[in-house]
Amino acid sequence: MVLLSAGPGDLELLTLKAARELAAAQVLLLDELVDPGIVELAPRARVLRVGKRGGCRSTPQAFICRLMRRYALQGARVVRVKGGDALLFGRAGEEIEFLRAAGVPVRIVNGVSSAFAAAAGLGVSLTHREHCHGVSFVTAHTRDHGEPDWAALAATGTTLAIYMGLGRVASVAAALLRHLPAQTPAAIVLAASRADERRIVTTLARLHEHAEAGRGGAPGLILVGAALAAAAASPACVEEAAAAARR
Amino acid sequence: MVLLSAGPGDLELLTLKAARELAAAQVLLLDELVDPGIVELAPRARVLRVGKRGGCRSTPQAFICRLMRRYALQGARVVRVKGGDALLFGRAGEEIEFLRAAGVPVRIVNGVSSAFAAAAGLGVSLTHREHCHGVSFVTAHTRDHGEPDWAALAATGTTLAIYMGLGRVASVAAALLRHLPAQTPAAIVLAASRADERRIVTTLARLHEHAEAGRGGAPGLILVGAALAAAAASPACVEEAAAAARR
Repeated sequence: MVLLSAGPGDLELLTLKAARELAAAQVLLLDELVDPGIVELAPRARVLRVGKRGGCRSTPQAFICRLMRRYALQGARVVRVKGGDALLFGRAGEEIEFLRAAGVPVRIVNGVSSAFAAAAGLGVSLTHREHCHGVSFVTAHTRDHGEPDWAALAATGTTLAIYMGLGRVASVAAALLRHLPAQTPAAIVLAASRADERRIVTTLARLHEHAEAGRGGAPGLILVGAALAAAAASPACVEEAAAAARR
Repeated sequence: MVLLSAGPGDLELLTLKAARELAAAQVLLLDELVDPGIVELAPRARVLRVGKRGGCRSTPQAFICRLMRRYALQGARVVRVKGGDALLFGRAGEEIEFLRAAGVPVRIVNGVSSAFAAAAGLGVSLTHREHCHGVSFVTAHTRDHGEPDWAALAATGTTLAIYMGLGRVASVAAALLRHLPAQTPAAIVLAASRADERRIVTTLARLHEHAEAGRGGAPGLILVGAALAAAAASPACVEEAAAAARR
């Protein structure tokens, strides 16, 4: 079976390989964050929606694993679709282990992770070489509900791309302010690459003012680091700022 | 003009959007690491090869910038093609700034960065949630030829995906051994996603034994972290190990 990356939202960001796998799929297991329009690319497939989302009604992981195994062992062409790249967060590791243990061979089709799409929307590189030599992709939550080691992350000097942090913008900002200058450029990008993409360009000191950004339930990223400084000069963001000023 | 991500190598990993932009391109500026076969997707385009590569004869960055500006201001549909995702390393930040200052609007088309393809080849997630809560993408070189802060990177607990490190595997391994356990799983993936992809699964302690991996000049990644432990169990890697034992 195939573990397929649907990318950040815009279906045009699917890879050619992904489109080919979808066209041949017989069973599609869809994550909640994937654009429902993707089913049109899989006309032969029976579609099973197996959304999982923090705090909402969701399909248990063990049930999803058993579903994949059942259809795969029946010989069906099963495609498990995950948002972004399947290998970044999203429990692909557990699914791969489970399927392997069940004797089901797994192929992986990569995709565009949403931090890249967020940077594209902002018109910036994630790693401007004058500012830093890397980027760290982290989740605001860890398995045991602990926090990432913000002190260590800040000390790396890498750009920080924080996934699943929109529910706690203020506490993430407060934690980072203990280790980074208040004027460190920061941004929030909601629904990167989608028609309703929204960009907020700010600083670490003012990030908490946008704590409401995650309220609508749209997926989004928090980006922090000197590389984001160029976003303030990006035409798309200057336009957004002007629109905000008019409101 | 368009800054376009060619992905890790396999042209099937281009996005649908990238394929469409290539089909309409009139001028193509190609990086050295991009599969030359990409020109077949851009049948209308004049192709300019502007490879840049550490230590080899290369096109100066300022010349590339001026070329892009010249063709864009002539009204041509110019597509600048970069390996992986254009916004990770590769000086996209400088090119965007230069073009904006020249009044040339820039659109960005994302792609798959090679660390994702490397993980797919290894059959592992970059961020198994039992092991870590993130991944850091860094270059072994910084602008002033200094080193990344390996101590801080190790302290984050994230998986490390080290780009452009194959020329100095032994020194990277030695630096990381000061901060991480010797038994930390590690891997080298050469030419991820290409027909000649090669995978080495090892530990941090034994990483230096593969210092010759970069000799052929193939692009490659070093991956370090507990999330790589699953690679040793991956069918592709078990097969490679068997082949190595036979050699």
